[in-house]
This record gives sequence, C-alpha cells and structure tokens, in this order.
Amino acid sequence: MSVYLNDIPLPQAQEKLSQALAEAGLAGILGIEEIPLDEHALGRVLAEPVWAKISSPHYHASAMDGYAVRAEQTAGAMPTAPITLTYGDQAVYLDTGDPLPEWANAVVPIENVEPLDESDGLIGDSRHPNAIRIRASLPPWQHVRPMGEDIVATQLVLPAGHVLRPVDLGAVAACGHDRMRVTRRPSVAILPTGTELVPVGTLVKPGDIIEYNSLVLAAQVSTWGGNAVRYPVTADDFDQICQRVREAAGEHDLVLLNAGSSAGSEDFSARVVESLGTLLVHGVAVRPGHPVILGMVRRGASKEKKSGMVPVIGVPGYPVSAALTGEIFVKPLLERWQGRGESKPLEIKATLTRKITSPAGDDDYMRVAVGRVGEKMLAAPLARGAGVITSLVRADGIAIVPRGSQGLPAGAEVTVHLYRSPDELEATIFAIGSHDITLDLLSQFLAARGRRLVSANVGSQGGLVALRRGEAHLAGSHLLDPETGEYNLRYIRQYLPETPVQVIALVERQQGLIVLPGNPKLINSLGDIVRPEVTFINRQRGAGTRVLLDYILGQLNIDSSNIRGYDQEEYTHLAVAAAVRSGRADCGLGIAAAAQALELDFIPLYQERYDLVVPLEHVGSQLLAPLWSVLENSEFRKAVARMPGYNIQPMGKLIAEMK
Amino acid sequence: MSVYLNDIPLPQAQEKLSQALAEAGLAGILGIEEIPLDEHALGRVLAEPVWAKISSPHYHASAMDGYAVRAEQTAGAMPTAPITLTYGDQAVYLDTGDPLPEWANAVVPIENVEPLDESDGLIGDSRHPNAIRIRASLPPWQHVRPMGEDIVATQLVLPAGHVLRPVDLGAVAACGHDRMRVTRRPSVAILPTGTELVPVGTLVKPGDIIEYNSLVLAAQVSTWGGNAVRYPVTADDFDQICQRVREAAGEHDLVLLNAGSSAGSEDFSARVVESLGTLLVHGVAVRPGHPVILGMVRRGASKEKKSGMVPVIGVPGYPVSAALTGEIFVKPLLERWQGRGESKPLEIKATLTRKITSPAGDDDYMRVAVGRVGEKMLAAPLARGAGVITSLVRADGIAIVPRGSQGLPAGAEVTVHLYRSPDELEATIFAIGSHDITLDLLSQFLAARGRRLVSANVGSQGGLVALRRGEAHLAGSHLLDPETGEYNLRYIRQYLPETPVQVIALVERQQGLIVLPGNPKLINSLGDIVRPEVTFINRQRGAGTRVLLDYILGQLNIDSSNIRGYDQEEYTHLAVAAAVRSGRADCGLGIAAAAQALELDFIPLYQERYDLVVPLEHVGSQLLAPLWSVLENSEFRKAVARMPGYNIQPMGKLIAEMK
Repeated sequence: MSVYLNDIPLPQAQEKLSQALAEAGLAGILGIEEIPLDEHALGRVLAEPVWAKISSPHYHASAMDGYAVRAEQTAGAMPTAPITLTYGDQAVYLDTGDPLPEWANAVVPIENVEPLDESDGLIGDSRHPNAIRIRASLPPWQHVRPMGEDIVATQLVLPAGHVLRPVDLGAVAACGHDRMRVTRRPSVAILPTGTELVPVGTLVKPGDIIEYNSLVLAAQVSTWGGNAVRYPVTADDFDQICQRVREAAGEHDLVLLNAGSSAGSEDFSARVVESLGTLLVHGVAVRPGHPVILGMVRRGASKEKKSGMVPVIGVPGYPVSAALTGEIFVKPLLERWQGRGESKPLEIKATLTRKITSPAGDDDYMRVAVGRVGEKMLAAPLARGAGVITSLVRADGIAIVPRGSQGLPAGAEVTVHLYRSPDELEATIFAIGSHDITLDLLSQFLAARGRRLVSANVGSQGGLVALRRGEAHLAGSHLLDPETGEYNLRYIRQYLPETPVQVIALVERQQGLIVLPGNPKLINSLGDIVRPEVTFINRQRGAGTRVLLDYILGQLNIDSSNIRGYDQEEYTHLAVAAAVRSGRADCGLGIAAAAQALELDFIPLYQERYDLVVPLEHVGSQLLAPLWSVLENSEFRKAVARMPGYNIQPMGKLIAEMK
Repeated sequence: MSVYLNDIPLPQAQEKLSQALAEAGLAGILGIEEIPLDEHALGRVLAEPVWAKISSPHYHASAMDGYAVRAEQTAGAMPTAPITLTYGDQAVYLDTGDPLPEWANAVVPIENVEPLDESDGLIGDSRHPNAIRIRASLPPWQHVRPMGEDIVATQLVLPAGHVLRPVDLGAVAACGHDRMRVTRRPSVAILPTGTELVPVGTLVKPGDIIEYNSLVLAAQVSTWGGNAVRYPVTADDFDQICQRVREAAGEHDLVLLNAGSSAGSEDFSARVVESLGTLLVHGVAVRPGHPVILGMVRRGASKEKKSGMVPVIGVPGYPVSAALTGEIFVKPLLERWQGRGESKPLEIKATLTRKITSPAGDDDYMRVAVGRVGEKMLAAPLARGAGVITSLVRADGIAIVPRGSQGLPAGAEVTVHLYRSPDELEATIFAIGSHDITLDLLSQFLAARGRRLVSANVGSQGGLVALRRGEAHLAGSHLLDPETGEYNLRYIRQYLPETPVQVIALVERQQGLIVLPGNPKLINSLGDIVRPEVTFINRQRGAGTRVLLDYILGQLNIDSSNIRGYDQEEYTHLAVAAAVRSGRADCGLGIAAAAQALELDFIPLYQERYDLVVPLEHVGSQLLAPLWSVLENSEFRKAVARMPGYNIQPMGKLIAEMK
C-alpha cells in the first residue's frame, strides 16, 4: 500500500470546487425565504434590497414638547415686544412626536412660552391656556421633524447582501415593513466516522478517541450562519459510510465527512465519494490538513429537495486539520450561499520570535501567539502538530508560510490573520522563559484583571535571550550559579549586559525526582539514573532544570551518555511527569507540583528560587501593574502555597536591580 | 412646567450606577449554571477555569499508519544493511491513532517497510506479514504522539471568563469533560411605553409611532449575551407603568423602560422609578440620548428569585438615543454580569471631512461614514438628529466630540470607534457631490461586486471641493455653464486647477417642477413660483439644481426674495419631493424619478447631463474597477432606463480628460 494522496495547491483546489458548484447550479445563494421582523432576524442576510414603503417620520412631527404655531405669525416678536397667539386657531399644544396641524409650520418649545388665562394673566398650567405669549420669532419648520427627515418613501434603506444588525431591524420597521426576504440558511450534515470513536464524556481506555470534531465543525457552521446537523458515529465500513452519505446528501446542502480522508487501510472517504459521484480533489497542499477531499455526490431521491449534486468535503481527522479545513473550505462556501461578502480576518504584521521550518510544498498554517513588547508586535509560533488542538485554542492568529518557502528565520516579518481584536493584544503580557505551574495560576488571576498572560516555555536561558532581543515583558528564570549558589544574577550579567532589569522573586520550589507511585525502581538520588534498567526523561537544553541536572552530573562525575533517555527532551515539568506516568520513562527531574498533579511519587532533592526577570522599561508600565498587585494578593499567595513544594515567603521581593 | 433634567457627566452617571449595583450585590456575575458540552455552549462565558481531567492523547498513539517497533532493535539498519523484525513480538501493524503496545517505543511508517512472507520473500499485503524488513534506524518515540502531547491532565486548559469559541469546545472535550460551568445569562425585560405607539407593520396614520425601539434593544441584548423579553406596549399611565415595572422587576435582572424618560407631561419614567425605589440619575450629558434614567427598584415578591433591588434604565424614545443608550449602559452591564471582559470597538484615527458644531456641555456621539481615499482615512459626519436611525445604519463608526468642545473644524483628526472591520473600509468608494437616484442603484450593483459606495450629498460644487481636498474617489456633478451650455468642465477648471481628472458621463436626466398630483396650483413654469399663493422648496447652495434654478431666475429677472420658501433648503431630490408630498411646499425643482417615487406630478423643463468626475489617480484603481464594469452592465443600464426621465445613452462615455 502506498500514499494515494495527490496534493494540489489550495487555489487550484478551490477553483475545482467552484467550477463543480457552478455546473451544479450551486454557485450563488441557495434560496430566499420571507421571515418576520423580529430579533431572530439578527445575522440573516437580505436577499433583496429594502426600499422604504413609507417615510419616517411619515408626517410632520413636533420635535419638542411645545406649541404648534405658524412661523409667519411670530414675526417681529422680541423680548421687549411679545406677541400673543390665541389657543386653538393660532397655537396648539403638542407632545414630542405629535403631528403638526395642517395650518402650522413651527413649534415653540414649552419653556419659551408664557401661558395666559382669559384676562391675559400668567397661569401655571401651560397645556391649555387661553393664549400664549412669546418673545422671539421662529423661522418656519423650527423644532419640527419634517416628514421624510430620516427616510423618504421609495428610497434604498438596506442593500441586498446586508447582514442584519440590531439598528437595521429598527430602520426596516421605521420604513413600514414587518417582513423581510432573506437568504436561506445552508443546512450542513456532519458525519463522524471511525470505529475507534467514543462520545464526549466517555471513560476512555487506550485506543479510544473522543469524538469532538463534529462538535467543533457544528459550532463553526452555526457561527458562519449555517444549520448544522450532527449524525451519529459511523463505523469504518465502506457500505455503511456510503449509506450515510447518500442519506445526508438527500437532506442537506453540504456533507462534511470527518476522517477517513487520508489513504490508510481504514480510509474510505475518497472511495465513497467516487462511488456516489465525482472525486474532485484528494489532497491539498496545506499543513496541517492536507488530506482534504472535495467532491460532488448525487442527491438521493428525496421528497423535499430537487435532485442534483451535493458537495461533500472530506475533513481530515486530526483536530487542528479539521478546524482549519472548516475555515478554509466551509466558511467561504457558507458565506457565498448566504449571499454575504467574504468576511476576512484582520491582518497585522508581526515579527517572528523564533526560527521555524516548513514543508516547501505546502502552505503552512502556523498558529501564533501575538503581543506587543515595546514597539514590536511579536508572533510566537505555537506547537505545530495537527493533533495539538490547544495550539488553536491559544492561537491569537494564523501566519501562513507560503508554498515554496522551507521556513523563516527568527526576526522575519509575517502577516498574521488575527483571531483576536487588536486591543486584546495590547493587554497581553508576553512571558518567555522557564516553565512553572505558578504561571497557570498567575494567568487566571491576571485574566480577572484585564490582562492576558501568554507564556512560551523555552527554558530559563531562552527567556534571557528573548529579553535581550526585546521580545518579552518578563522571563521566568531559575539558573543556579554553581560557584556562588546564587540564582540568575551571573547569567543576567552574561546574557543581558545592555538591558537594565529588576529581578523579582516569584517562589521557592522543590526540585526532585518524579517517579512512579511506590517508586518501583527504588530511585533515590541522581546517582540511580545511570542504572541500566532505569530510563530517564530529560528537559531541553537551556532549561534551568537541565542546567541543574548537568551541574550535579558533573559533580557526581556521571557521563550523560550512560543515561538512557538523556537525549529525550520535554519542555515542561508536566510533560516530564506525563512521560513518567505513561511508562515512557522511569523518572525525570522536576518540581513536586507536577508529580502531585499526575499522582506520582516525588523524591525531593533541591530547594531553588524561581525569579521573574523584568526589564526596567516594563516594570512600571500600566501593562504589568496588575501583575504586581497579584503578587501581593492573599488569595493568590494562598493558592500557590497550597501547591506541594512551594514556598511563597520570597514572593514579590526585589532580589536585585541591574543597570 | 420646566425641564427637570439635570444632566451629569457620563463617568459620574456610570459611577453612581456601579455603586448602587455593588450595594445591591450585583457588581459581579449573576450566577453559575452547568451546561452540557454541545454547540449551544458557543458564546457562553466560563464561570470557572477548565482544568484537564485526562491527558490528550491519553495514551501513546501512533502518528502514522505503520509498524510499532522498539527503536533499539532498529539500530544499525541501513540501505545496504537491512534489519528484519518478526511480526508479533518485534513489530505490529497500527493505524494512525492506535495505541502503542507496552513494549514498543517507535513507529516505522508503512511506506518504509518491506513486508516478508515465511520464506523471507517480499509480499504485497503489508498488514500481517511474517516479518518486516527496514533499511533505516529510528530514534525512540519517532512517529509517536506521546501521551499528553497536547494536554497533560491537571493543566489549565481555559481560564474563567473565557468566551467559548468552536475550537474551545473541542479542547474541553479532549481533556475529558462533557459539561461546563458557565455564567448565567442575564434576563432583560424591555417595556415599551407610549399611547402613540403602534406595532411594526401597522398601516399608520399621522401621530402613530411605529414601536421598534424594543426590537432594536432586544436584538442588542441578545447580541451581548442576554435573554431579552419584550413586553407589550403600556399606555402613558403612571399606575399602569408602575404595575408593569414591578412585574418585570420580579422576573428579570434588568428592566429597560423605553421612552417617557424626559421631563414632558407624559414622561412618567422618573416618577415611576422614584416611587418603586431609588432614582439615581435623571439626565446624562451625552448627545444624542441625554434624558437617560438610571435607578434601582425593589424586586417584587416572587417565588423564583430572591428579593432585593433590580436596576432600571430609562431609555430615551428617539431611536438613535435608544440604541446608543444600549451601547453605553446596557452592554457593559451585561458583560460584567457574564464575567467577560469589556469588548471595546476597534479604534482608528480619521480626518473629519467637514466642520461640525457640538453642544459644549455634552459628550457628542457623532455618527460618521469612514473610508480611505489615497493615504487619508476620512470620517464624514452623518445626520445628527436623534430621530435619524439611518444615521446609525449608515455609520461606520462613532466619533465622540468630548464635553468642553463646541465643535471641530474640517480636517480635524478624530478617533472613530468602528462598527465595521477595517478591510471593509478599504473596499469603500467615497462619492461626495450631487445626489442622483442612480447612485442608490449603483450602490446595489457595487455591493454585489465587493464594493461599498458611500455617498455624501453636498451638491455638485461641494463634490468638486472634496476632490480638490483629496477627500473623495469621485464626485457626481451636473453644473451648467450658462455661457456654453456645456456641463461641469468650466467648474472643474475653476475648482480643480491642480487635479487631473476624467469626466465620465453617468446619465442624462430630466429636471422639472415636482408638484402635487393633479397640479392643483397650476404651476407650469418657473415663472409661476413667484405667485404669492405658491410655496417653493429649494435645494442647498452649491447643488447643481440650485445653480440651474438661480441661472434661470436670472434669465427671467425674478428676484428670489419674492419666492416663498426660497430660503427652505433640502439636500436631495427625494427630500424635495417629500416636502411637496407632505404639503410643506407646493413645488420644487428636481428630477422626474423623485416625483414618480412619491407619486407626484412632474412638469419637465430641462434635460441635463450628470457626470462622474474622477481624479486620474483613482480611475485605474482596483477599487473603482467594479464601477466601470457596472456602467457597462446591461442589467444596470436597464434598471436605470426604467426610471422616468433618464437617458442612458451617454453612460460611461469619456467626456473629457483634464490634466
């Protein structure tokens, strides 16, 4: 068996689908329906322009509480020469919005009037006096909202293709309509397939895959104005999948067939589409997500709908691929079918924080975190794997590395299609450096104070390098200086000779060996990790924990090449604990909290200080102000102290200011 | 009776409300509810962080279709020195996503394997061979997605306060949840009051006001995450309104009492709030919308809810005031109650196209159209009246003229809070100049081609001035040169000596007198408009129609001071027709289409050409390309030709290129 995929460039794939849709008469809107004018019309798309049936106001209306008069009869009125108008034929009281009598052409506001009784004496009740006295003349049409001031009957109020917002509903009502003709919402069937799939919330066993792609796709479809229907899971069986696709194509405008779109032994999607219609595309040169299928299948005989062809999109199974396939193929289709313009994400330019490599043949959809540090807008690449859905959750946007490029260097300018509004980016604290679980808690507390903490785990040394390049607001660091036993300061002098910083303690924490419950391999010190039956899991170079390890190995005269797994690196304490938990390794060096989180045992070895290194230019900024108050916050301190192996005593202490 | 309103600055009003809410225990989220993980969770706000219950993947999974092996057993394999692994104990076939056997620690992709039969011969079926031969070694964990690659159990997946998007639902499912705790949606009662109100779709008579504020407010509330309940209209009656407010306060979290918030004889809102609780604010210094009421009323005895206080907002009756009150007061309250951060509109800087005056005591919420012309981002002020809902419909954003300023000069820089995304602004064609009904049609056809036509009606001369200042992409113009009988060219030479332009004909059209049906005052020529019993309605200075009128009056030796209504100006042909239709005037000079639109009679007098004047720098631009194709489009031409008094013969013809 070999790979049958034949990746074609994205524009070519889109063009093939467009052509097939045009041939099937599905290039434009799907249909028109009339709906009542109520709040459910929000977000619907006008199929036809709205022309005003009536004017608004539809009569000359008083714009004030006051008296309708004829402007000509007020001519010459002055403070010293008042004019008196008799009530009834020369002046009539109106509330705001009341129609002007035919004979009137202006309104004098109630506060500018002296109401008179029969004997021309001033009276209090001003609404039905015998006469009124005024001391200023009025031009015609003053304080009148003339008919048509807002809308003139027959004028265009809203164009076709307009997406209805709250105020639009008001305008449609104002010009005399109580119904509107809007485009039909596309109906989308979502068919999860795969024998290994189990429903959300199942107590899983190895091999079970929680089926949530259909949930994400359905939510996307409804965000984009479609009606999504999720079908039950179909097993990996050619006939069953055929049957389901036929059924779905009979009832819906679009079928999303999830997974089985690649070329493995259980991948039936392409064959299914071929047997029910036309396979247009199998494989698109985009990463992640390349095993996309585009096709058209015959609509089954159905009472409700005309027969014809229905597009099918074979959506890849990896969750990031599935969600991006939605954005790339489903969204524009639903927009077109609804007759609305294609909504494009906001684009900004940003500077890449690290080098990335990229497959030369594909458009690479790189998820990035984005934030501003000083004058620089930065894009930090997130995890690249198609299975890492948190990379999309955390993404502030997508930067596309186009086909033909094999990657980009750190510092390259990229265009980011934003998922967030730019003002959220301005409230982002970029923390690059060492990983500590306290940062998760910090992120929680900062979120409640209007700040977003984005932390990239590149190790302590990597954090200092990022500060030097002006690419972070702060770096977490716990780099031991073996000569002095002090933390960080020597490294800061080395890495940041030109950058004045404050070093502020976050916590003291316990480093030690993370082992399986009951410590079955009896690992009690770092000396034990060279034993042949022990597999170790390491941290990446530049991590403070790695520095610590290498320092102690040196002291113990242990050759790292004798340690099984020394070359296996993880980027966080939790990932080290997960490797132990899963049996991939017997032990790793890390913090107590990570061991406890995964119910592992912990052999405490060293107490170390973890500091925040903050360039002076950011220390006093508005952006970081909430951070300093969180460090003083007793709830935050209690929450940290509750975690095993943490000492909050030094928290917030200024360790050094280095200029 | 006098004005009881006591306008206070907006921040003060907000502070008073905040304090009262805090005292009533309503400063934070209203409550928490658990909901299932499905697509209805979209847009809900997490009340608590989501911590991972399980890892994802929750086992070591094959990342490819291939064979699970132990990496150590592949050591030394080379193209010239293959290694053979027996099936079952040294190699096992896995589909992508299958769990790795305990003994394995790497996957060799199926395409890199030579499957062998019992006699070590190559076989075709590669899934259950007797053995496999490989010609390259593997590092441990290659092509494996290790447990926790995406999410490690116990880690923070989403913070509290997060608004759920499609991918978030996937991440929550992936880490083992099938329910989530989210904040309760606020329930908002909307109470329209006013004896003059009639429902949407009523055949109106003078004095009837179509009640659509409750529709706009309800749609706003649902956009902002609340549940809106619209109550039936209550008449202007103190006791009935009291009763309704009491009822609504017993069932909902917020009561919006629409209209009656000012100080007129029928304005009961303030008294109602006072009698049921505390009137905090009556009048806020914002325009439009200043007669806002903020108060707290006692919650009636209700089975479902605890007693306490409920906020009431008295929303002014003018539609623009009502909608802006929603944005200013209701939106932040709903956001706070849902525990989500305040969403701020995108802000841009733009240049004001014309001078505006503004009340010094108020924050003035000016609606503006926004578009880019060349390098300049421009903001064109729209109608200022609180009753002009189309000013909000057309608005691309709001520019706030702060208290203390009495206005701004043309060319001033303003900050615009955008209603539209910036890329829509880039697709905006700014047409400033004379008004012609063809522009409505043009706007329709351009919308279908991805362009937004924003036209400001400032008259032909105003349009040329705008071109000179670089503030429009084109100007519609029909300025007669009395000496030559030619249109526009002399004026362009005069107004645009430095700006190379093309003059492109749009239409020829009939100018004439718009009169009531049956022409009751027997008006047959411009000579008749000086008759004492005839009232005229004029166009503004600088309008081509006004130039035409003044030219003919000069020829006829008519003194304009003898024309009743000569000083009454309107800005469009339709507005002139509306003035005649409503009896405000007996006749006006305008185009046939405007007369027909409002079923008026038309006395044709002159045939004139209406041109588009387009600076050369824009003629060939991407932005205007669709415009030129619309002028060639036969459907567009037919639609224009169908309008009375139009001749499309010259459409699209290049009249002159002037350098």
